[in-house]
Amino acid sequence: MPEAYQDKIDLEARKRGINIMNGTFSKLLESLESGKELKLVIPKRTLTNTIFDPEKGILKLGVSKLERRFLDMNEARRFMQTLVMASIIYRALIENEYPTIRDLYYRGKHTIVYRDLEGKHREENTWDEQAESDAVLRDLEVMLGLLREDLMILSKEKGKVVGNMRIRSGNDVIDLSKLGHGAYAIESTPDLIEFLDVDAEFVLVVEKDAVFQQLHRVGFWQKYKSILVTGAGQPDRATRRFVRRLNEELGLPVYVLTDSDPYGWYIYSVFKVGSIQLSYESERLATPKAKFLGVSMSDIFGHGRKKPYLTDEERRNYIIKAKELDIRRAKELMKYSWFQTNLWKREIDMFLDKKAKLEIEALASKGLRFLAFQYLPEKIQTHDWIE
Amino acid sequence: MPEAYQDKIDLEARKRGINIMNGTFSKLLESLESGKELKLVIPKRTLTNTIFDPEKGILKLGVSKLERRFLDMNEARRFMQTLVMASIIYRALIENEYPTIRDLYYRGKHTIVYRDLEGKHREENTWDEQAESDAVLRDLEVMLGLLREDLMILSKEKGKVVGNMRIRSGNDVIDLSKLGHGAYAIESTPDLIEFLDVDAEFVLVVEKDAVFQQLHRVGFWQKYKSILVTGAGQPDRATRRFVRRLNEELGLPVYVLTDSDPYGWYIYSVFKVGSIQLSYESERLATPKAKFLGVSMSDIFGHGRKKPYLTDEERRNYIIKAKELDIRRAKELMKYSWFQTNLWKREIDMFLDKKAKLEIEALASKGLRFLAFQYLPEKIQTHDWIE
Repeated sequence: MPEAYQDKIDLEARKRGINIMNGTFSKLLESLESGKELKLVIPKRTLTNTIFDPEKGILKLGVSKLERRFLDMNEARRFMQTLVMASIIYRALIENEYPTIRDLYYRGKHTIVYRDLEGKHREENTWDEQAESDAVLRDLEVMLGLLREDLMILSKEKGKVVGNMRIRSGNDVIDLSKLGHGAYAIESTPDLIEFLDVDAEFVLVVEKDAVFQQLHRVGFWQKYKSILVTGAGQPDRATRRFVRRLNEELGLPVYVLTDSDPYGWYIYSVFKVGSIQLSYESERLATPKAKFLGVSMSDIFGHGRKKPYLTDEERRNYIIKAKELDIRRAKELMKYSWFQTNLWKREIDMFLDKKAKLEIEALASKGLRFLAFQYLPEKIQTHDWIE
Repeated sequence: MPEAYQDKIDLEARKRGINIMNGTFSKLLESLESGKELKLVIPKRTLTNTIFDPEKGILKLGVSKLERRFLDMNEARRFMQTLVMASIIYRALIENEYPTIRDLYYRGKHTIVYRDLEGKHREENTWDEQAESDAVLRDLEVMLGLLREDLMILSKEKGKVVGNMRIRSGNDVIDLSKLGHGAYAIESTPDLIEFLDVDAEFVLVVEKDAVFQQLHRVGFWQKYKSILVTGAGQPDRATRRFVRRLNEELGLPVYVLTDSDPYGWYIYSVFKVGSIQLSYESERLATPKAKFLGVSMSDIFGHGRKKPYLTDEERRNYIIKAKELDIRRAKELMKYSWFQTNLWKREIDMFLDKKAKLEIEALASKGLRFLAFQYLPEKIQTHDWIE
């Protein structure tokens, strides 16, 4: 039986994580040994400490910090939880484990039995629900200035990529242009990917997996030298980070293709800016330069001199009437500053006026070649996107 | 700009589909030209025409057929729909399109305007909901004796694979053991994959994507020469067909690893037998020899001489109490003949007695090495599976 697989890239990443954890927690140890007060200093993850940086186009945490004190009755439990989580993650790093957040929840879940000052028997659960252990993990991420992936914590991933580039992942070099009809499923830790030869002019991010497969199969990325990515619906962290790196490190423009409806806009928004609740992630996961390529309201109805891509009859057959929920979502999105550009205002106003949605499949049904070899290249060449 | 990508494998598959459609529909044309009654003969997809073949262990359609007549008022609409769908698919095959089922719905969706015998203006929609076009597609599949994938109809896919083998897909050869931390996303048309060198002793199918990634990352398939597959929850058609082919054509045993609960058993059931409603698919998608490796009730509680893998304390911390829905699901599964073996009866009885569920992550939290290098190999070596 061969020896267990050794992955140098992972070992190096572990060392970085271990060093940073040592640095942060050795201070706590010093306090303990010198009899000082035990406290953890953690950037606040509250909405009031969340800032939209219009220059960079990203959400980030402000400078407010909270102090979590061991000897504060209101904080002692959370202090204990933070140390439980830190020690589990640290041990996992040392022992070459790859926990998931569900794992971490189970690893830490137990009952602490102790006697209080009056000698009474007491029990305290470390945590009961995963929501608790997840929140503690987020505290640790902002405290250490690392994302969970930097700590070798894996998660479910559904992002895929094909295109004109080679990458190094783990011990292997993978040619993303030699994957046949299949695709490369992006790893949980996309920061460990090394970009090698790239011969592409742009990145097309497709909301729907089935449309990704259609475009792949018809040879879109071969004809227009490009990288094709899908997040298969709501994109996960790894897909977002991977797209960000393609944009930031390779300088490739990123175009997002979704259904023409508020849910599609939201997918675009997640790629571009991220979640307000998780702004500390956005600093590394968001792609502020991402452009919404379509399907746009003016593709459906035309606007000014621009002719629509659909005929009257096609509109009659393909358009789906917007529901109350769609309208509410659209009005919600209008509040975000990155939807307050002139082009987005026009788009959302048109939607609220027409109350019409269109699926990308409706365009594909006009012929996959129409979608791949007319609509998409024309939109890109004429800069007909929204941002 | 390079020429559009040419894929010989796809072109050959198209020719096969076109020939079979020509064969079937030329009969209809002959009837039309010779003034005979127009009718389509379609195997019945009803439950009463669904048979469980205990020898092969698969569901399949019986011999009952229905005749869909053009000149039958009750059938004329469905007859029209069947021909609309057939012509769309045929055209897509000829024009090198790769439609999805959503596409097909849109491609066919329109209003037929005509005058009736009394000269009155009439309108009839080809179909309104995708449920209608999907049902017609299923009729066509059984009528032609083909699956949609044989007709180059693509769908969303989430199956992944890594392991000791090389495959040919489209124009490329892909080494599934050289994918770094990522994986190969299985194509929509797994019958077009050619298996090349295989150096594996078994296939491990993992319910959860995150656990798949953990086992991949820790080098499970390298240490125990194997192929690792995940369907990421409820498996899609391509993943099921891919696993079936690994079993049938390469003779590799297939072990399924899921949570210990009725939902996990159901995932196993889908791989092993498939859906009663879609028995015509099962003949090609099911893997009747698949074995349920775990997590089993006896792994949690022990049984006879077998010691449990969990300590009392671990059981206390990890077990989730079964809900009413779980109990109902378990009782539902008991009715299926492939759950009426002695081992399955014992498993389900134990579940109904203990009312306990366990997630695979709870085992992983005992250490990924425990899961990968002790639990799994021990279970396989001692044949400790259920079927």
